[in-house]
Amino acid sequence: MIRGDFRSDNVAGVSAEIMAALAAANTGTMASYGKDEISAAVNARFSAVFGRQAIVFPVSTGTAANALSLAACLRPYGAVYCQEEAHIETSEGGAVVAFSGGGTLMPLRGDGHRLDPEELRASLAGAPRGNPMKPQPDVVTVTQAAEHGVVYRLETLRRIGEVAREAGILFHMDGARFANALATLDCTAAEMTEGVDILSFGATKNGAMNTEAIVVFRPDLVEPLAFRLRRAGQTWSKMRFAATQLLAYVEDDLYLRLARAANGLARRLVRGLCAIPGVALMAEVEANIVFVVLPPDLIDRLSAEGFLFNRRTFDTIRLVCRFDGQREEVDALVQAVARLLDRRIQAA
Amino acid sequence: MIRGDFRSDNVAGVSAEIMAALAAANTGTMASYGKDEISAAVNARFSAVFGRQAIVFPVSTGTAANALSLAACLRPYGAVYCQEEAHIETSEGGAVVAFSGGGTLMPLRGDGHRLDPEELRASLAGAPRGNPMKPQPDVVTVTQAAEHGVVYRLETLRRIGEVAREAGILFHMDGARFANALATLDCTAAEMTEGVDILSFGATKNGAMNTEAIVVFRPDLVEPLAFRLRRAGQTWSKMRFAATQLLAYVEDDLYLRLARAANGLARRLVRGLCAIPGVALMAEVEANIVFVVLPPDLIDRLSAEGFLFNRRTFDTIRLVCRFDGQREEVDALVQAVARLLDRRIQAA
Amino acid sequence: MIRGDFRSDNVAGVSAEIMAALAAANTGTMASYGKDEISAAVNARFSAVFGRQAIVFPVSTGTAANALSLAACLRPYGAVYCQEEAHIETSEGGAVVAFSGGGTLMPLRGDGHRLDPEELRASLAGAPRGNPMKPQPDVVTVTQAAEHGVVYRLETLRRIGEVAREAGILFHMDGARFANALATLDCTAAEMTEGVDILSFGATKNGAMNTEAIVVFRPDLVEPLAFRLRRAGQTWSKMRFAATQLLAYVEDDLYLRLARAANGLARRLVRGLCAIPGVALMAEVEANIVFVVLPPDLIDRLSAEGFLFNRRTFDTIRLVCRFDGQREEVDALVQAVARLLDRRIQAA
Amino acid sequence: MIRGDFRSDNVAGVSAEIMAALAAANTGTMASYGKDEISAAVNARFSAVFGRQAIVFPVSTGTAANALSLAACLRPYGAVYCQEEAHIETSEGGAVVAFSGGGTLMPLRGDGHRLDPEELRASLAGAPRGNPMKPQPDVVTVTQAAEHGVVYRLETLRRIGEVAREAGILFHMDGARFANALATLDCTAAEMTEGVDILSFGATKNGAMNTEAIVVFRPDLVEPLAFRLRRAGQTWSKMRFAATQLLAYVEDDLYLRLARAANGLARRLVRGLCAIPGVALMAEVEANIVFVVLPPDLIDRLSAEGFLFNRRTFDTIRLVCRFDGQREEVDALVQAVARLLDRRIQAA
Repeated sequence: MIRGDFRSDNVAGVSAEIMAALAAANTGTMASYGKDEISAAVNARFSAVFGRQAIVFPVSTGTAANALSLAACLRPYGAVYCQEEAHIETSEGGAVVAFSGGGTLMPLRGDGHRLDPEELRASLAGAPRGNPMKPQPDVVTVTQAAEHGVVYRLETLRRIGEVAREAGILFHMDGARFANALATLDCTAAEMTEGVDILSFGATKNGAMNTEAIVVFRPDLVEPLAFRLRRAGQTWSKMRFAATQLLAYVEDDLYLRLARAANGLARRLVRGLCAIPGVALMAEVEANIVFVVLPPDLIDRLSAEGFLFNRRTFDTIRLVCRFDGQREEVDALVQAVARLLDRRIQAA
Repeated sequence: MIRGDFRSDNVAGVSAEIMAALAAANTGTMASYGKDEISAAVNARFSAVFGRQAIVFPVSTGTAANALSLAACLRPYGAVYCQEEAHIETSEGGAVVAFSGGGTLMPLRGDGHRLDPEELRASLAGAPRGNPMKPQPDVVTVTQAAEHGVVYRLETLRRIGEVAREAGILFHMDGARFANALATLDCTAAEMTEGVDILSFGATKNGAMNTEAIVVFRPDLVEPLAFRLRRAGQTWSKMRFAATQLLAYVEDDLYLRLARAANGLARRLVRGLCAIPGVALMAEVEANIVFVVLPPDLIDRLSAEGFLFNRRTFDTIRLVCRFDGQREEVDALVQAVARLLDRRIQAA
Repeated sequence: MIRGDFRSDNVAGVSAEIMAALAAANTGTMASYGKDEISAAVNARFSAVFGRQAIVFPVSTGTAANALSLAACLRPYGAVYCQEEAHIETSEGGAVVAFSGGGTLMPLRGDGHRLDPEELRASLAGAPRGNPMKPQPDVVTVTQAAEHGVVYRLETLRRIGEVAREAGILFHMDGARFANALATLDCTAAEMTEGVDILSFGATKNGAMNTEAIVVFRPDLVEPLAFRLRRAGQTWSKMRFAATQLLAYVEDDLYLRLARAANGLARRLVRGLCAIPGVALMAEVEANIVFVVLPPDLIDRLSAEGFLFNRRTFDTIRLVCRFDGQREEVDALVQAVARLLDRRIQAA
Repeated sequence: MIRGDFRSDNVAGVSAEIMAALAAANTGTMASYGKDEISAAVNARFSAVFGRQAIVFPVSTGTAANALSLAACLRPYGAVYCQEEAHIETSEGGAVVAFSGGGTLMPLRGDGHRLDPEELRASLAGAPRGNPMKPQPDVVTVTQAAEHGVVYRLETLRRIGEVAREAGILFHMDGARFANALATLDCTAAEMTEGVDILSFGATKNGAMNTEAIVVFRPDLVEPLAFRLRRAGQTWSKMRFAATQLLAYVEDDLYLRLARAANGLARRLVRGLCAIPGVALMAEVEANIVFVVLPPDLIDRLSAEGFLFNRRTFDTIRLVCRFDGQREEVDALVQAVARLLDRRIQAA
């Protein structure tokens, strides 16, 4: 029996509002490839969300969003600067390199989970510009929230944007968990994307069914992106069913409400775990992801008791809270950890 | 007011059965990236449909299905033989070339709409094998039903498969309208894909929401395809919502029922139009697509009266019938053509 | 015994002047990768030849020159307009497509051997600009002299340049036999390249050992080209030995003298052949290439008698005259054809 | 005035024997693209050198040799394991990635300059085989001699070959300075390439004019390589002038004699420098490259006095000895270092 599912936010279902929107969109015929009336509303709606002109391209996955938006920023001999834990570096099968025709990823250490603006500045300052033996700086990317669940502060994002602008490169944000970060910072989407040129805007992990969006803030990126999307097979014929998900997702701040639910469960989980002696967190918990260090045999025991999660090393697990997660799951996990640790101590 | 919508089958909505399946799949958590229990059922279900072992990869568009399945068949210096009207040649933005790292399309004339096995044989016999200045034969593709709505006979497919096998190349089928062709031939899916190595299996045009499938019949194509899909951003995290569409699509032969509805409307349209003196069809109508030659001003008039269709040249229009099309649309169009032509004759 | 070698101009050796230049360059140490003093002289020397600023990149082959200069002009979804007999279309193994990351060749018929400016204009006017399903016009290329040995007139080149400029695309010239065309037109290199943005400047066929040059007339093409050359492995370490060939090649118009020798032999060959009843030329002879239609058995006989040439079809051969060709070869061939034809007539 | 040139071995000229061979090859006409009689002798000659069947492809640069031979070994989603200082990783402009359509370089630390077989074994054992998010092991490459001038022992090469074979991946050797390593090991070329599947065989740095060779020991790599070479523009038309360089290069062990000269100068340089108190070498000197740590102002002074070399950091220089280097250069440099250091000590 499954007592709690913390494997990922993408094991979640679809929010009721988005299911309703899909049903509502299934009325009559509509023009294909994004020329329908639902798709027509997306740019204006997202421009309002982001406080400036935004051109939106729905795509099927986060890998597609990242790889194609970055490919539109990269010369074939260009480089994308990223933090070394970035999903594009670790988990996307070389998609950026493939779609850019040979671009290069330049991983930086940062604070372990987030880029450091000064390290980026130094790295760009030392970049071998004009040297054909070496990749040329074209774009920097940040993941907001980052892989380990920490969140960039606005001030850090502002400085990264400045460094990028001074270096003459573009600024991309991988927002696979954009809403979770935004809920944490409690600012506007406009504030969190100031200086950003192009954004992978996540929706699937946080309640959508099967669409993400590339949000373009620079008109000169629209054409190179649109052509790459088409040849990548990322232009849906029945685009209305992607557009309606995106509209419903931001309507009445649904995305924030869903993200707050997930983040709230993560905070509850952290509070519970931190109250147990002997439990250590691997990183701050600022969104919906919790990395916990536990005795290996206790991890095995948790699995055996019906808790699902992602084991990263022998003694570290990743717990992800979902928009549709239940307090009961969280509490059950906390109690199980407490009980198992207590038993260990008594046994010792 | 729209009196009839014949622009394409992708202006249609989603069939009720597939909407119901999507709702039913939205229950609880499930493993991501295709490791869920719904996805687990797809291979067995499709193997039953095709009468042999089939490995199925859901993808978001027909362009993705074609380009990635062909890329898995092609060496970078390989060639895909196709009929010159093939969608991969005319309308997919160079996707095959891009995903294969530089493959070449070799368009053949055939009968104008379909490949001719003997022309293919001759072309392959004359291929400059081993000459590094020239592309090397790797795969042949047929579109079933073909772009102009005609359908390959089983015998022709069998001969193309033979030619491919003798030449040592692979056989791909672009089945964007697979069900429409199958309904026409009134045979089994197994019979229509005998000798086919890899299939782009269309679903979106015929009632699905936003998924197609690549169906692989050769195990050695699975690995090169799976890796290309991932780096192409074609591996959905919430895969269950693609899998459930595909399962519902073939359940109780839904796909055939939907296709028969569309084909039936096309036959009704043809019967109606052919009864009008002065109306000429550009190709046989064997699926759900009708090409009609009409006086240019009459075409303008039809538009003005609220009929939607695709104008191909000044005097030729393409009419596509949908699974969710209405007899009233068809009859209204036939009557309008009859009336307008009649008025012309009296005016003359 | 070989009585005459007309297979190609690349079966020739190296001109004495270029051998001497290579020997002279072999003195002491020099900086590598083109930072040496010999390479330093090339840009100025070629700028003088072309009457405007020229930046020169030596490369190892004509395929490299064409594919990399065109790749620098092409977006990945861009198209290069060419005549259908162009070497890039027929004989370079897909190099343009590969180096451009998926660009498209758009072959036009022209007059059978040369692009027609009006056909080009019409084709560009009908180009589906902004349609992501279709390749986008980026560059037009002409081959001067063309594959069949005919030469573009200045007026035609001027009009092609105009069409390109009006369409906002670049103008590339494949000058694998640049000198042969220039010798024929008896104009300056500046006149023959007016309006050209980037040039594949051939040298190997006409007396160099193993270098061609890309000559860039637009500064904005320098960077994208330089980076592509390096990653293509086209940047020689001992660049001086390429540079010295190029300098010697244009010194005192050596390239023109060598081309005049080859062209002169071709004219002599044509005069001889045309004086024989029953001999037909397939195209005008304006450079050093002669296409002759002859009875198949007579072609076999010529081979058997020790003449080397390229047989294109059962009754057509290509004869190429070399800078180091001999009058004796030409005369022997003419006499053999005359004798063999005469024998046939008497036998008949 | 230049008193010594230690910038690189590619600032050298061409050996007299190779110049003579080029002159000798310049006789009469010969078939192009490697079908000439000189090229015909290369495979047999190299097979004798390597003690097994070798198929040889001349190419214009070391980057071309590495990138194209590795591309022939790589799936687009494949990985090449290399030591982190490898030239393909640091200095070839992304050539491997570009030619392989998106392959990945996996740099390992090794002993700082050379791969460590056990680290390689561990890394391969942990490779995420079958995981489409991650690059898949295809080939390992060693640089012999390595970038810092150290040489792999036969035993280490043997073990790397074993690890590769066990892991089912290919073994590539970057032999840009093959002869220098071979001269040091004093073994046969066969012994030094036991287990190697494909070799970048350097010639230019060690006395050739402008050719390197890819030597293929596995017949199944010939076709994928040959096609890639052609489309990369690496198939010379007048191939005889590459082939003759390669033949002369190995004739009577010329390559070993030239390498011994360069290595001997390097040993002389090391002996001289090590006799000076306060001079430190950064790595062992086993070929013709010497890395020396010196006070920064002394390095400036050496430059000012007319010594040419490559400064790697503020206090480290690279000195490369050439096949055509002079004892006087070496001795002058040693004396200058001694004098300048002595002056510093007295000033202190």
